[in-house]
Amino acid sequence: MTHTLVLLRHGESEWNAKNLFTGWVDVALTEKGRGEAVRGGELMREAGILPDVVHTSLQRRAINTAALSLDAADRHWIPVKRSWRLNERHYGALQGKDKKQTLEEYGEEQFMLWRRSFDVPPPPLDDSDEWSQAGDPRYADLGDELPRTECLKDVIARFLPYWEAEIVPDLQSGRTVLVAAHGNSLRALVKHLDGISDEDIAGLNIPTGMPLLYRLDESMKPTVAGGEYLDPEAAAEAAAAVANQGR
Amino acid sequence: MTHTLVLLRHGESEWNAKNLFTGWVDVALTEKGRGEAVRGGELMREAGILPDVVHTSLQRRAINTAALSLDAADRHWIPVKRSWRLNERHYGALQGKDKKQTLEEYGEEQFMLWRRSFDVPPPPLDDSDEWSQAGDPRYADLGDELPRTECLKDVIARFLPYWEAEIVPDLQSGRTVLVAAHGNSLRALVKHLDGISDEDIAGLNIPTGMPLLYRLDESMKPTVAGGEYLDPEAAAEAAAAVANQGR
Repeated sequence: MTHTLVLLRHGESEWNAKNLFTGWVDVALTEKGRGEAVRGGELMREAGILPDVVHTSLQRRAINTAALSLDAADRHWIPVKRSWRLNERHYGALQGKDKKQTLEEYGEEQFMLWRRSFDVPPPPLDDSDEWSQAGDPRYADLGDELPRTECLKDVIARFLPYWEAEIVPDLQSGRTVLVAAHGNSLRALVKHLDGISDEDIAGLNIPTGMPLLYRLDESMKPTVAGGEYLDPEAAAEAAAAVANQGR
Repeated sequence: MTHTLVLLRHGESEWNAKNLFTGWVDVALTEKGRGEAVRGGELMREAGILPDVVHTSLQRRAINTAALSLDAADRHWIPVKRSWRLNERHYGALQGKDKKQTLEEYGEEQFMLWRRSFDVPPPPLDDSDEWSQAGDPRYADLGDELPRTECLKDVIARFLPYWEAEIVPDLQSGRTVLVAAHGNSLRALVKHLDGISDEDIAGLNIPTGMPLLYRLDESMKPTVAGGEYLDPEAAAEAAAAVANQGR
């Protein structure tokens, strides 16, 4: 018997649309992003992949993507669990900055290092910055664990304990699990599931609003490497578009 | 120290708008209903009444009212708990029927008995009826507990165990609790909190989309009888309108 896991990256947000680095800034979905979420839910319903429990980050764009997609799949009533450990990568001092402008200011090499390096985070965000999360009540319990910047390695380090403690037990109990999260928290999970190297993960992009299905064996290894998109053609097109961001 | 409880009845649903008996049929909010939910969240935010946890029914109109109001209050990230015990009263064989037509067919006395009697339920809904919830996966765990009709007394009997086991502990831990539910599950709770008699509860209507604030003492008794609406004038107008339904 296999376990069923569905990953869903939130649809377009207001800052995706404006080409700004977002990270932990809690922006809303655009109308297009809301439509992507609904479409993702319709794909789940059509495929008969019906989540029994959903895990989300503490960020509006993932929370609303989960709600809209589950409503479209007629699974709005399932249990919900949320954690900061599913949040997007904290983008440090880049939060709120224009991607194209940052590329021009710092050059291709530094830009790609910040975007795709496995273990080099951007400079930390100052607590007094308008885009800081210091003082946000939803993170009050984190204390010194509150990130001021993160690289993908940091995201993996804070995501995997939640995976093991909260998501794996849901899968082991036979539930179909939906994880509604972000580009980099989902890359962290995919890297872990598929055993992707620190180098190769740089080339992996996850498209928005496209349910990605993993069937996992008893040791939580994918039966199909990389999983399967419920709409593979649309996913391939969208992944190519993500790779060209900032150009 | 008092405990803080906010009750929120879902906004206008598609069947409220069509004047049909709804009960456990899982209809969506109208655009007006969505606006009511957002306004309810804005009222909470403006009053500084910020929920730490939300309890909803398993029905779309309450689930979406919770999501929209919490998003507007910037509290979309709080923990969510759901239970069928917060569902609307099951309206039995009246589910799907037109209220005005039912009034004309059965007369004022029978109509008001079904709508407002404390302990006389409508005839049961047949499991083969198109509006039955038999076979709905969200209620699969209920087995023989699945209602086929309910009077308010039945709603109280299935709601109060959840109140004691799940909501009271949240209040006792110091959390501000939002209960996003339905006309009759909230009447059941208000009857319990305010010690309203079986006769007097017939006259109590709770308006849609209006946050009703209760400050409760250590024995979970209201410090102000009947609670306080965050927008008292709008609530009084709306309650009068509910009382005239079916006319």
